[in-house]
Amino acid sequence: MIRTISFSSSTSSPQRELDIDQMKHALQNPEGLLWVSLEQPDSAETDQILRDVFNFHPLAIEDSQSTGYQTAKIDEYGQYLLIIAHALAASTVHINSDSSLELNLFLGENYLVTSYNSADMPPVREVWERLQRDERIVQNGSDYLCHAILDHLVDDYFPLLDQMDETIEALEDQVLKNPTTDTLSKLLESKHDLMSLRRIISPQREVINRLSRDDYPMIDKQSRLYYRDVYDHLVRLQDLSESLRDIVSGALDIYLNSTSLRLNEVMRSLTIVSTIFLPLTFVAGIYGMNFDYMPEIPWRYGYLFVWVIFILIIVGMLAWFRHRKWF
Amino acid sequence: MIRTISFSSSTSSPQRELDIDQMKHALQNPEGLLWVSLEQPDSAETDQILRDVFNFHPLAIEDSQSTGYQTAKIDEYGQYLLIIAHALAASTVHINSDSSLELNLFLGENYLVTSYNSADMPPVREVWERLQRDERIVQNGSDYLCHAILDHLVDDYFPLLDQMDETIEALEDQVLKNPTTDTLSKLLESKHDLMSLRRIISPQREVINRLSRDDYPMIDKQSRLYYRDVYDHLVRLQDLSESLRDIVSGALDIYLNSTSLRLNEVMRSLTIVSTIFLPLTFVAGIYGMNFDYMPEIPWRYGYLFVWVIFILIIVGMLAWFRHRKWF
Amino acid sequence: MIRTISFSSSTSSPQRELDIDQMKHALQNPEGLLWVSLEQPDSAETDQILRDVFNFHPLAIEDSQSTGYQTAKIDEYGQYLLIIAHALAASTVHINSDSSLELNLFLGENYLVTSYNSADMPPVREVWERLQRDERIVQNGSDYLCHAILDHLVDDYFPLLDQMDETIEALEDQVLKNPTTDTLSKLLESKHDLMSLRRIISPQREVINRLSRDDYPMIDKQSRLYYRDVYDHLVRLQDLSESLRDIVSGALDIYLNSTSLRLNEVMRSLTIVSTIFLPLTFVAGIYGMNFDYMPEIPWRYGYLFVWVIFILIIVGMLAWFRHRKWF
Amino acid sequence: MIRTISFSSSTSSPQRELDIDQMKHALQNPEGLLWVSLEQPDSAETDQILRDVFNFHPLAIEDSQSTGYQTAKIDEYGQYLLIIAHALAASTVHINSDSSLELNLFLGENYLVTSYNSADMPPVREVWERLQRDERIVQNGSDYLCHAILDHLVDDYFPLLDQMDETIEALEDQVLKNPTTDTLSKLLESKHDLMSLRRIISPQREVINRLSRDDYPMIDKQSRLYYRDVYDHLVRLQDLSESLRDIVSGALDIYLNSTSLRLNEVMRSLTIVSTIFLPLTFVAGIYGMNFDYMPEIPWRYGYLFVWVIFILIIVGMLAWFRHRKWF
Amino acid sequence: MIRTISFSSSTSSPQRELDIDQMKHALQNPEGLLWVSLEQPDSAETDQILRDVFNFHPLAIEDSQSTGYQTAKIDEYGQYLLIIAHALAASTVHINSDSSLELNLFLGENYLVTSYNSADMPPVREVWERLQRDERIVQNGSDYLCHAILDHLVDDYFPLLDQMDETIEALEDQVLKNPTTDTLSKLLESKHDLMSLRRIISPQREVINRLSRDDYPMIDKQSRLYYRDVYDHLVRLQDLSESLRDIVSGALDIYLNSTSLRLNEVMRSLTIVSTIFLPLTFVAGIYGMNFDYMPEIPWRYGYLFVWVIFILIIVGMLAWFRHRKWF
Repeated sequence: MIRTISFSSSTSSPQRELDIDQMKHALQNPEGLLWVSLEQPDSAETDQILRDVFNFHPLAIEDSQSTGYQTAKIDEYGQYLLIIAHALAASTVHINSDSSLELNLFLGENYLVTSYNSADMPPVREVWERLQRDERIVQNGSDYLCHAILDHLVDDYFPLLDQMDETIEALEDQVLKNPTTDTLSKLLESKHDLMSLRRIISPQREVINRLSRDDYPMIDKQSRLYYRDVYDHLVRLQDLSESLRDIVSGALDIYLNSTSLRLNEVMRSLTIVSTIFLPLTFVAGIYGMNFDYMPEIPWRYGYLFVWVIFILIIVGMLAWFRHRKWF
Repeated sequence: MIRTISFSSSTSSPQRELDIDQMKHALQNPEGLLWVSLEQPDSAETDQILRDVFNFHPLAIEDSQSTGYQTAKIDEYGQYLLIIAHALAASTVHINSDSSLELNLFLGENYLVTSYNSADMPPVREVWERLQRDERIVQNGSDYLCHAILDHLVDDYFPLLDQMDETIEALEDQVLKNPTTDTLSKLLESKHDLMSLRRIISPQREVINRLSRDDYPMIDKQSRLYYRDVYDHLVRLQDLSESLRDIVSGALDIYLNSTSLRLNEVMRSLTIVSTIFLPLTFVAGIYGMNFDYMPEIPWRYGYLFVWVIFILIIVGMLAWFRHRKWF
Repeated sequence: MIRTISFSSSTSSPQRELDIDQMKHALQNPEGLLWVSLEQPDSAETDQILRDVFNFHPLAIEDSQSTGYQTAKIDEYGQYLLIIAHALAASTVHINSDSSLELNLFLGENYLVTSYNSADMPPVREVWERLQRDERIVQNGSDYLCHAILDHLVDDYFPLLDQMDETIEALEDQVLKNPTTDTLSKLLESKHDLMSLRRIISPQREVINRLSRDDYPMIDKQSRLYYRDVYDHLVRLQDLSESLRDIVSGALDIYLNSTSLRLNEVMRSLTIVSTIFLPLTFVAGIYGMNFDYMPEIPWRYGYLFVWVIFILIIVGMLAWFRHRKWF
Repeated sequence: MIRTISFSSSTSSPQRELDIDQMKHALQNPEGLLWVSLEQPDSAETDQILRDVFNFHPLAIEDSQSTGYQTAKIDEYGQYLLIIAHALAASTVHINSDSSLELNLFLGENYLVTSYNSADMPPVREVWERLQRDERIVQNGSDYLCHAILDHLVDDYFPLLDQMDETIEALEDQVLKNPTTDTLSKLLESKHDLMSLRRIISPQREVINRLSRDDYPMIDKQSRLYYRDVYDHLVRLQDLSESLRDIVSGALDIYLNSTSLRLNEVMRSLTIVSTIFLPLTFVAGIYGMNFDYMPEIPWRYGYLFVWVIFILIIVGMLAWFRHRKWF
Repeated sequence: MIRTISFSSSTSSPQRELDIDQMKHALQNPEGLLWVSLEQPDSAETDQILRDVFNFHPLAIEDSQSTGYQTAKIDEYGQYLLIIAHALAASTVHINSDSSLELNLFLGENYLVTSYNSADMPPVREVWERLQRDERIVQNGSDYLCHAILDHLVDDYFPLLDQMDETIEALEDQVLKNPTTDTLSKLLESKHDLMSLRRIISPQREVINRLSRDDYPMIDKQSRLYYRDVYDHLVRLQDLSESLRDIVSGALDIYLNSTSLRLNEVMRSLTIVSTIFLPLTFVAGIYGMNFDYMPEIPWRYGYLFVWVIFILIIVGMLAWFRHRKWF
């Protein structure tokens, strides 16, 4: 699907659903703004628009249509930039190859081409809807429009982090109160998610940083302030995710230590029981022997005497354990 | 609440509680100094003052009013700087989201606007009180006033670190003398606090470093010396907190090792007891058998003989354990 | 074996299997393109071609013929570059000294010399075959031809990584379901492979980065775009391999923890059995003693009474274990 | 206490114990050299000399008199430098807050002011004593004098490291031969000392590096060679301390592994004993049963038969253990 | 011992064993080349040659004669460089303070002075011997001669690494097949050696890097290529040693895990034996009780019945263990 919108000047009404020739015409107007959004384009559409209308470099087109995972980056091709960024699929719970949606943006002086191969692309959809209600968003040119999409893209990560924050705090509680193997695997899963998140966020941070600092002709000095704002949000995102990583690591430490503590406790129980009953059983064994000549056997107080020994052993052992602070 | 104070020159008496027009007027005077402190401002106040009086950039206003956690930073907007720093809430014991108070400072050539959303902001309060007693603080201009606030902000961290130092040394003692699970959780808590502290301090260090080195028009060359002094304090702060991190890590190592040592000790007790009494019980079991033809049973010295065996086993085992240095 | 091909201009047909004099002649033509591929050359061939025809520096020749492992690098010798890169042997499963094939490229304004000592060099072979079908590859000059070889070289790593990805995910499953010592050694092997891979890829990334950014006279500004594309592929390669490293590390963590958990479980079983049967055996031992005067022995309900004790002990212990959540 | 010495030119005799006016006079002479050493100065002395005679910046004075721990640093104040370094107290065994003595140096074109709050400052004392014997040290100006003090300061660290080296090698031996808990705590202590040492040395290295490279007006190009020499000593110091850190880490690894190995050995003993005697005791228990109809009991060779079983069990178990290489 | 050789021009025959005056004379000739090799010089020789003939800076002389370990470095003294490098003693097996030999090189426009305090210095000896056979080595001037020595110095490290490679692969095998405590200590020793090696190589890499890149007057642009070649060898050396470090770390991981696995196995054996025989012994104990009224005792099938119970317990336990996959 292809969606197009063109403003001949920042105040006039937009023209929608342009055909190829209209697009070419719109590109002639340096004051105008043309936004083309390619959604799961087939190769014919790609050829027509990216190659024929916009005349993009074959490498840029290939990169924008490639289906494998690509790290976020920014490539400068003289008159335009190719920006690759990663949006988060709506209602993402875990970070994996499905949750990260590649968005390609071609940013020129008076146009923006967005292209993606996923069924949905929340930041583009949101900006498109906002454009229906409020056309002010295009008054500041293509660089501002591009910023608006990237701003939505970045802000969509925050709800995920908030949710992970809740999950992780619940896990931390579980670890302290009643750790199970399930707690462990959830902790490892969270750690995994946070590592994947870092791998998605870090290169985007670099991309936005370059947009806010480097001197690209299609981004006004004024607009860089907006990119810097997006950059600050990304820094906050990374900060948040590092805090979560610290909490997860701490919880894992406690978990592993609790395993070792429980082993200690189990072994102590075993040792106490064995150390008390092995001697007792031995003493009982002595008087279970059948020797004909055993002086204690016919003794009137033999049985009483052996009970005294039993009790002395028990009391002595318990005193010794208490002395060593074993319970 | 809004507090304002204005000096028309560094020697004259101040004017307090200015209204909007007076503020606008004060801003005209390049020799004067206007300080506006916004404390939990509502959006009407924000609009009036930040937008209408000072004409700040919408992004700067948005950043300064945002309620989420923001990393410390410094943004340059031509005529003024927006500095975001984190003060410590009074009587903080643990570092968490409540203990870190965001302070926003707009620093211009002849004005300073401070703004925060917390109920209290110790460094602003302290400088304000100092200003009642001693107006010399404003003689060196807005950059010096800003430095005074940041200096208080940084110095407020030291008592917390001193207190953590005491806590951690007590924990280190406990680990060596009588470690309990409670010691562990307190150590992990301290580690957590120190990690959070690092995340708060590091970006502030960067902010102050830039204030003391970069060439901002609103900071005189002379005043940079003062910022460098604040920077040195932050370096010391970080040094202190890293020392504490080392001590905590060391104490955790000892703790975990002591767990493992105690397991060794427990197992050794169990092994000694088992290794002595299992053979004894077996020997007693032999003579508890009821075979009709057992030569030792009717023997006159059978019982004596078996006691000799018992004693030989015990003595032999103890000798062997001593030989292996088990006790 | 030596293969040569020469184009006198980008449109004319090529000349193949040139002799020494033809090569020298071809080098005179600044518009032409000469590609010489040395495959396991003997020293006579090397001397003739690298020294006499191309007049390369002795150090460059020595480096290109050295048989030990050499880190990928790029050396600038005025009129030409020596690039050392590592291709992957066809059907590589594990990374070791056999799987990494050193490829030496001498890149000049109007020539490319490739040289290697392995029996096969997939990227050179592939580009050579492509050249038979499609001569357009040479129209952009020696820098584009060199790029084509490096592009193949880098892309050959992706199938290996895909295969490692599958292996590692299977191992991750095994760790969670039924970990064995074999799982561990395979995990450690994968970790080892990934570390070796990193050591091969990192310096190549640096080499390609320099080719795409530095200002070498034999690489046009236009061609750098192509090198940047190769660079992006290498970045993706590194990203992929780091993701795999994270998964392997996570799986190792789970494995080691599962060892410790199983120990805990084993010890708990032992402790439960011992704690129940040691007291029972002791009680039975008491009434196995042969004292003449034991009041319970002739008692009518003695045996019943001792069974009550047995059952009380068993029930009590089980209740205590359940209370402590041991099963 | 205040010590002063002044040379009007590099050849004339010195003047000692100058009063305030003499100091002011000495400062007028650009060819002379004035050294003032403040030892635990009170605030009156500080005011008179640092403020009135030398006219230092209030921040520099405050820094030099501050009593808390300050990281080594170098601050440039136009006409003079403030250098903060850390000497080692004489006969230091462990690194702690008492062993590190802060030394403040104000270095100007024709003067050096040293100031410290500790009872003793070995490098200043040593240079002062050397000055009594040999006045050549002042012929090269204030920068050379300052270098002499810093050189002594750095060299005083070597004996401590030599001593730690011996201690650590003894500990390494102990770990291999007869590790005790005491060995562990001493190893952790050494690790702690080495970490503290690194925190003291690293910033000083940076300070000396800047003195030997940056272009300060009060340090001649010629004198930088001497600072570079001090810098090399610091690098060696750091190298030495990192070697020691490696040895300590290695020894800790062996220690922890030996704990785990001993646990293995203890458990193996227990298992061997239990696995042999539990079956034996069971067999003996069988023939201790009192059933009226047990065919083996009245059998003539019953007792012999049971001994054969005992011996078979023992021999079989031992063979199995040897097969599994348990002893 | 002092060895000297002088070439008045690159083609003429050399003059050997020069006296002080001849050396001074040789230094006058800008086209010539003078090599002086000081081997364990006494201080008189040092004074005469380094101070009087070459007029080196006292700091350079002190550095070159210092006996303690010095990190490799390069110091520029205007007309000459002082290079400190570390050769490997012949037939080194482990890296320690004896195996690293300090070599000092003073490199000037038309002279090279090498100086060392060890009994042997392989790279100097080798280059000296090569000079007897082949004087071409001096035709390229002092910078080429210096390169030749450093080249030998670096290449002497490769045999050691090859040997360590073999040792470590043998250890890796041992770890997998039959790990003993001896394997562990050898692994730790190898790790130690590799860490020491890194500390020796890293600063040398920096030294050679500076020689191949920085603009020193006594090194021609042409000669830098040769230094770059030495640099590449050092990079390969570091790569090799890092590969070995990875293998050692991997082997240590397997070793430690195998310790833990064996503990698991030992404990499982113990638990199986205990869990089977403790109940059996208890049952036998029941019928060893002497109660007058026990219904099973006079029962005709009592003994048979108890054997049925024994077998049921054994079979049940084994089935349960198999169910839990314990063997």
